[in-house]
Amino acid sequence: MNQYFDYAASTPESPEVSELMNPWHAEIFANPSSVHPEGLKASKAIQLAREIIAEKIGAFPSEIIFTSGASESNNMAIKGIAFKNIEKKGHIITSSIEHKCIINTCIYLQSIGFDVTYLTPDNDGVISVKSVLNAIKDNTILISIHHVNNELGTIQNIRDIGSIGFERNIPFHTDAAQSFCKLDIDVDDFNLDMLSLSGHKIYAPKGIGALYVRNAREVGLIPLIHGGGQELGLRGGTSPTPLIVGLGAAVENFPESKCPQHFEFEEKIKDYNFIRNGNSPAVSTIWNITFSTDEEAKRFTNEQPWLISQGSACNAMANTPSHVLTAIGLEEAQARRTYRISLPPYHITC
Amino acid sequence: MNQYFDYAASTPESPEVSELMNPWHAEIFANPSSVHPEGLKASKAIQLAREIIAEKIGAFPSEIIFTSGASESNNMAIKGIAFKNIEKKGHIITSSIEHKCIINTCIYLQSIGFDVTYLTPDNDGVISVKSVLNAIKDNTILISIHHVNNELGTIQNIRDIGSIGFERNIPFHTDAAQSFCKLDIDVDDFNLDMLSLSGHKIYAPKGIGALYVRNAREVGLIPLIHGGGQELGLRGGTSPTPLIVGLGAAVENFPESKCPQHFEFEEKIKDYNFIRNGNSPAVSTIWNITFSTDEEAKRFTNEQPWLISQGSACNAMANTPSHVLTAIGLEEAQARRTYRISLPPYHITC
Repeated sequence: MNQYFDYAASTPESPEVSELMNPWHAEIFANPSSVHPEGLKASKAIQLAREIIAEKIGAFPSEIIFTSGASESNNMAIKGIAFKNIEKKGHIITSSIEHKCIINTCIYLQSIGFDVTYLTPDNDGVISVKSVLNAIKDNTILISIHHVNNELGTIQNIRDIGSIGFERNIPFHTDAAQSFCKLDIDVDDFNLDMLSLSGHKIYAPKGIGALYVRNAREVGLIPLIHGGGQELGLRGGTSPTPLIVGLGAAVENFPESKCPQHFEFEEKIKDYNFIRNGNSPAVSTIWNITFSTDEEAKRFTNEQPWLISQGSACNAMANTPSHVLTAIGLEEAQARRTYRISLPPYHITC
Repeated sequence: MNQYFDYAASTPESPEVSELMNPWHAEIFANPSSVHPEGLKASKAIQLAREIIAEKIGAFPSEIIFTSGASESNNMAIKGIAFKNIEKKGHIITSSIEHKCIINTCIYLQSIGFDVTYLTPDNDGVISVKSVLNAIKDNTILISIHHVNNELGTIQNIRDIGSIGFERNIPFHTDAAQSFCKLDIDVDDFNLDMLSLSGHKIYAPKGIGALYVRNAREVGLIPLIHGGGQELGLRGGTSPTPLIVGLGAAVENFPESKCPQHFEFEEKIKDYNFIRNGNSPAVSTIWNITFSTDEEAKRFTNEQPWLISQGSACNAMANTPSHVLTAIGLEEAQARRTYRISLPPYHITC
């Protein structure tokens, strides 16, 4: 049995993805901004990937900006709006259980004069729609609430949060690093203005992601990476053709159903006594579980030498309970016997 | 004969690089921030690449921050210093022939209150050391002058510019995207505080680069991409193991000498009547040439169907003389018969 159960941290490149990327490493390698025929081939391949990704979320291709990954996309979305308002500053609504890249971006923005509200989830890991509504101020410039929590798997109600933003003309951004391809997303249906996505959570390479930006040409987002006019002038740097082709290929080849590892897991986990956190509802591929006792946790780790996480990969070095577990009310002793088991991602039909 | 002569825009991934990257796509693919054994393998591979790159420029491994490429590195360096001084603002010295990502970053910083001096080169494309000295003000917070010009190949005297910064305690940054591995660089010898480098100019993959930051832990640079603590907390986002391994492999396998394409080029180019711009001195792999007449330019493009650039790849779409050609005094008619021919990079011993 494959003992890797850390797919929420990273997935392998799938064989289909690797194969489709192959010609772009050394055969057709020109800079996609070059106007000679080899450059144009690369440029066309990038455009095709842009169309695939746009179609997946009901967007226009011109609304997809390629980035190095979801962390860059999240920074680009939040700072892009914030720096547009650098003179008069403003108020941002987010949650206390966002990915660290969002929390740390917001802490930085506070240090230069922005006002940030960090909504706390209930004990099931859910950010209530009402709490978003109540947090709105006259000078709120952005709402940023993730779609699926990376530690718990909890699915947030971003459709209703999107409506709140839409009705009040406040831009709404979601970090969809853990949901893109896994759950159905329609940017219009969810009233999304911006959406971050990542490649290496869906069998595409590491080092590629994208930011969806509604009406990207008109919205006046301040670029995070100023450059030579690439990506509508919103993101500088030579577009990495192989990685972008790989991202498109991953979307097109994303698995539609469970694999044997899921069924083996479901059988084995039944033997243990635990509570599943944040499961109301959660994606079926992320299980955050607190074992009933330290002994039960020890029995599990002895019997199942799986590669899993305590907290997320990004918190892994810290050796303290993650900010997410703390936010849903776990005490340190409980957090110590809590693990994230994450299974191979597939398209989940709720 | 290989007709691709646009290596300054992008190089292919070399076979050695592809081979060394191979196991990291789908075999050892764990998130390098994960603390389980598979994550640690990735983390060690990244550390090894960091050591290789550090050694190449006489730096410490802890001073190498991986980024998505030179554009991000340049943005990170300049905005990192600027945003550290966001309250009292300050003055930045750069040149009018930097890469567009630097020019556009500086234009943006001007729009929020920073003061920027754009030094103009002489007609040979050289930024005089004296002009840097004369531009210094009491509130100068950064000097950023590139090493090798991407359109002309001109080598700037960054050692002497570095001395000016060092003596006055003003941080000095250089964009070494076109010189890293090609020319010898020692960050102490050149008094460099920051240096940007790119992978896809040296046979490594697109989508990876690095920023050298002297005393990275202490310098207080504001991160461009806030994240989960990766890269000393200076650059968020899952570190892309395969790309980083590829960058290290490219440095270790960088060619030490010319290849047949260089000699074929040198023979063929003799047949034409032109002036080589910015050659005082320039790297031997970038030739920026203005043909004597429109007819001579036409004869060349008819006889040699090479894939070359007018201006740089990033300017290629614009169809106007590039800012670099304008800065060295070329008129529009001359610029129209000017081409950049760039040869396979190798380690040039001056």
